[in-house]
Amino acid sequence: MSSVDADVRDVEEVNRALYAAIENGDLDAMAALWASDDDSAPSVCVHPGWAPVLGRGRILRSWALVMAGTPYIQFFLTDVRTRVVGDVAVVSCAENILTAVGSAGGVPADPSDGFAGGQVVATNVYRRTADGWRAVVHHASPVLSRADDEPPGMEAEEQP
Amino acid sequence: MSSVDADVRDVEEVNRALYAAIENGDLDAMAALWASDDDSAPSVCVHPGWAPVLGRGRILRSWALVMAGTPYIQFFLTDVRTRVVGDVAVVSCAENILTAVGSAGGVPADPSDGFAGGQVVATNVYRRTADGWRAVVHHASPVLSRADDEPPGMEAEEQP
Repeated sequence: MSSVDADVRDVEEVNRALYAAIENGDLDAMAALWASDDDSAPSVCVHPGWAPVLGRGRILRSWALVMAGTPYIQFFLTDVRTRVVGDVAVVSCAENILTAVGSAGGVPADPSDGFAGGQVVATNVYRRTADGWRAVVHHASPVLSRADDEPPGMEAEEQP
Repeated sequence: MSSVDADVRDVEEVNRALYAAIENGDLDAMAALWASDDDSAPSVCVHPGWAPVLGRGRILRSWALVMAGTPYIQFFLTDVRTRVVGDVAVVSCAENILTAVGSAGGVPADPSDGFAGGQVVATNVYRRTADGWRAVVHHASPVLSRADDEPPGMEAEEQP
């Protein structure tokens, strides 16, 4: 395995861990995944439809709020594209999301009317640190148009 | 000026040029700003509310469509934060947008009822190339929540 392949593998593992932290409501795991603030620019986190949240402290507080308001969520990541250049990695992926709706605190008893789906597209940037790859940007945005509403040529490129 | 300061200056100039290309409907200028496809991963462009467009050819066709559908647009960039790490630069910015509405082909005669505003947040990633900094990711998403709808701690960090 080349070092680039190894980097891509490591980055994609960290990327999956970020979504696992959300699924598990594990703020400690989320905190471990974000870079410290001693970098050249503040970390940036854009939750779907939100204005940006800047800086590690505010970002972790925002995740605490998101987790507190999300009794159940599951991510199926697709179209994961990872670019590693030196000490920076950029991951683009589609977050196919399954959430509980109308549920006060857990998985609904009747899954047939208790779940909602949605698609979000994310750009995640990680920085290589002494402790491994750490998040510096998470930008997630809602996909508002269905694929068949889009003009020709907008579909994803063919896989090789 | 340090080399990092010079890089940040150069990147922010290219970032402004990207928005100028949209304002001017200048597809040639836009094409010159995007990296070629011979890189480790396809370039990615997310227009607000769209699914991702992947690869240089599709991205430029998408810009042609956006430009054709936009008789008048003006960007006021705020909260520009630029991080340069080696040969990669990540720019986060707010796009404060003024567009013409209900206008078939130009600036409306009566600006008082012919313009609409909106805010979009963008993450733009540039790669250092022999020809200068070139875009590899443009991710723009609508800000759907007003600042005063947000929970405490969500506002932008204080400027130093």
